[in-house]
Amino acid sequence: MPRVVRFHNFGGPEVLKIEVLDVRDPGENEVKIKVEALGLNRAEIVFREGKYLERDVDFPSQIGYEAAGIVEAIGSNVTNCKVGDKVSTIPSFSMAKYGVYGDVAVVPASAVAHYPDNLSTFEATSIWMQYLTAYGALIEFGQTRPEDFVVITAASSSVGFAAIQIVKEIGATAIATTRSSGKKQALLDAGADYVVVTDEEDLERKVHQITKGKGSRIIFDSVAGTFLKDLADLAAPEATIFIYGALSMMSTPFPLMMALKKGLVIRGYTLFEITGKPDRLERAKRYVVEKLKSGKIKPVLDKTFALEDIADAHRHMQSNEQIGKIIVSVN
Amino acid sequence: MPRVVRFHNFGGPEVLKIEVLDVRDPGENEVKIKVEALGLNRAEIVFREGKYLERDVDFPSQIGYEAAGIVEAIGSNVTNCKVGDKVSTIPSFSMAKYGVYGDVAVVPASAVAHYPDNLSTFEATSIWMQYLTAYGALIEFGQTRPEDFVVITAASSSVGFAAIQIVKEIGATAIATTRSSGKKQALLDAGADYVVVTDEEDLERKVHQITKGKGSRIIFDSVAGTFLKDLADLAAPEATIFIYGALSMMSTPFPLMMALKKGLVIRGYTLFEITGKPDRLERAKRYVVEKLKSGKIKPVLDKTFALEDIADAHRHMQSNEQIGKIIVSVN
Repeated sequence: MPRVVRFHNFGGPEVLKIEVLDVRDPGENEVKIKVEALGLNRAEIVFREGKYLERDVDFPSQIGYEAAGIVEAIGSNVTNCKVGDKVSTIPSFSMAKYGVYGDVAVVPASAVAHYPDNLSTFEATSIWMQYLTAYGALIEFGQTRPEDFVVITAASSSVGFAAIQIVKEIGATAIATTRSSGKKQALLDAGADYVVVTDEEDLERKVHQITKGKGSRIIFDSVAGTFLKDLADLAAPEATIFIYGALSMMSTPFPLMMALKKGLVIRGYTLFEITGKPDRLERAKRYVVEKLKSGKIKPVLDKTFALEDIADAHRHMQSNEQIGKIIVSVN
Repeated sequence: MPRVVRFHNFGGPEVLKIEVLDVRDPGENEVKIKVEALGLNRAEIVFREGKYLERDVDFPSQIGYEAAGIVEAIGSNVTNCKVGDKVSTIPSFSMAKYGVYGDVAVVPASAVAHYPDNLSTFEATSIWMQYLTAYGALIEFGQTRPEDFVVITAASSSVGFAAIQIVKEIGATAIATTRSSGKKQALLDAGADYVVVTDEEDLERKVHQITKGKGSRIIFDSVAGTFLKDLADLAAPEATIFIYGALSMMSTPFPLMMALKKGLVIRGYTLFEITGKPDRLERAKRYVVEKLKSGKIKPVLDKTFALEDIADAHRHMQSNEQIGKIIVSVN
C-alpha cells in the first residue's frame, strides 16, 4: 500500500506523519498520479500551522500542492490526459481534500498539466506555483513593460526566482531584495539587475539611486508587515504593490498618506486569481510552457529530500536557508 | 483693496483671518478672478490643521480650492479664457500659493474652467472637486458597470452625493452609508438605492442581503481607519476599495488575509491623478460638463455663509451636520 503524508493536528514539522494507506480510485473529473517527486511551497508550512487561507480542515488532513509523476488512472469525464502521461499538478484545489504528499495522489483533472520534455521530473514539481504566481502579478495584472523597475522582495524563494526570470524575459529591470548577503550572488546569477541586502543597505535610497528618482512601478512582495511602509516609500506614483504572502507574520499598517499622495494600488494577490478563471489560466499556461520550452525561464532547485524526511524538508524551508525550490524525491 | 483669507499658523477655525491686501496681477499662464462664491472642501479643514498632503507652507498662507466668478485679468500666454468670462476653479494647484478664499484670486490658467449656463454661481463652486473625484474613481479607474453594487461611505459629503449621482447615471446600484439616521432621507432623495445607517445596522450583513451574497465590486471610501476591515469584509472577489480621505483620523490596518483571500485592490486615490494628467482631465471635464448640461447630475448645496463668517463655515463643516456643499457668498 502507498505511503501518504498526513497530520492529525496543526503544529510544527513533527506533526507530519508517513502513513501507509489505501488510496481511493479517482472519481468523476479526477486523476490518480503515481508521484515521482514533490516541490515544497511556503503555503504548506502555513497550512500545517493552521494559518493558511484554507483553515477549515477535517483531521487527519492531507497536504501538498505540487507533484510530478505518471498518470496511473483516470476517472469518468477526464479528457485532458491519459494513463501513462507525464504530468505535474497546478495548485488549484483544497490541500485538505487533495494534498499530494505521498506515493500516489488523487487530484482534480483540471489541476493536471503536461510539462515540457526538456524538464526533469524534479524541475516539473517547480513550475506552476512559482510561474503562475509571478506571471499573474507581473503580466496579467501588472502589465509590466520594458521600461519598468520591478522590486522583488524575499527574492530567493522559488516564486522570487520565477519573478526575476519573468521580469528579465519582459526586458524590465529586476531589483531583488534579500535580508543577508549570503544569497546575493545566487540572485545575480539568476538574472537580477540589482540586489539590495536589506539588513545592510537602505532599500529606499538604493531604489531611488537605481531608478534615478522615478521609483518602482511594480513591487512584488511576500513579506507584508511594517515592511509595506518601506515599499510605499520607494514606489513610483501610481505604482502597484502586489502582496502575495505574509512572511513577516506581523500586522500590516496601510500606508495611507503615501498611498493618497502617490495614488498607490496595494493589492492582495494569490495565484488562485489565475487558476480560478479558465481564460486566465489558459493564457498563463501558454506563456509558461512556451518560455520553459525555449529555456528562457528555468526552475532553480535547492536541496532534495526523501519522502520519509518530509519533516526535515519543512524544517529546511523554515530555516530560510534555501535558494530556490526544495524538492522531495519519491521512491 | 480686496479681502483675502489667510492664516498665520496651523490650528482651529479661529486661525482664519480676513485681511485687506493688495493682490498681485496675474503672471504668465495665470488668471485673476473676481470671486462671487466659494465652495468648501474637507481638504481645506485638514490643510488649515497642518494635516493635509500639502504641509510645506510659508506663513501667512492662503487657502481654498473652489471659487466661481468672473475673469478680471489674464497673464501672458493665457488662451483658454478671456476677461469677463464666467468661470470656476479646478483644484489642481498649491493652496498655499493660490488659495482662492477672498474677493479676488490669482490661479493657474490650467485651473480655470467654464461651467454650463444652467448652473448658478453657487452651484458652480460645487463642480470640480466633487465630480472629478467621483468620476476618477468610479469611471476612469473603477470602470463601474450597470451590474455593479457600489458602496459609498460618508455619503452626505459633496463628493458622496456626486458619487451617488454618477453611479445612478451609470445605471449601477448605489449603497450609501451614513452614521446616523438624520441624513438617510436626503441620501434617498439624492438617488441612493439603499442607505445603511452604520450606527444602527450591520453594514456587512446589509450589503450581503442587498447583493445576494455577491458583495460590492466598487467601494468608495473617505473614512479609512479600522472601518477598512468592514469594507474588506463586504467586498466582492477582486473588488476595488478606493480610499480618498482619512476622516477617521485613526491608523488604518491593512486587511491582509481578506485581501489575499479575495484578491482585493486597495487604492489610495485623489483627484490629482485626474487633474495632473491632461488627457484624463479632458475626458473627465467632457463627461462632467455634458452630464451637468443635461441635468443628469446636479450639485446638492448645504448652507450659505458670508465671507466674513468663514471661520463659522469651517466650524459647520467640522460639525458634520451638513448635507452637500457648504457655500460662501462673496460680496
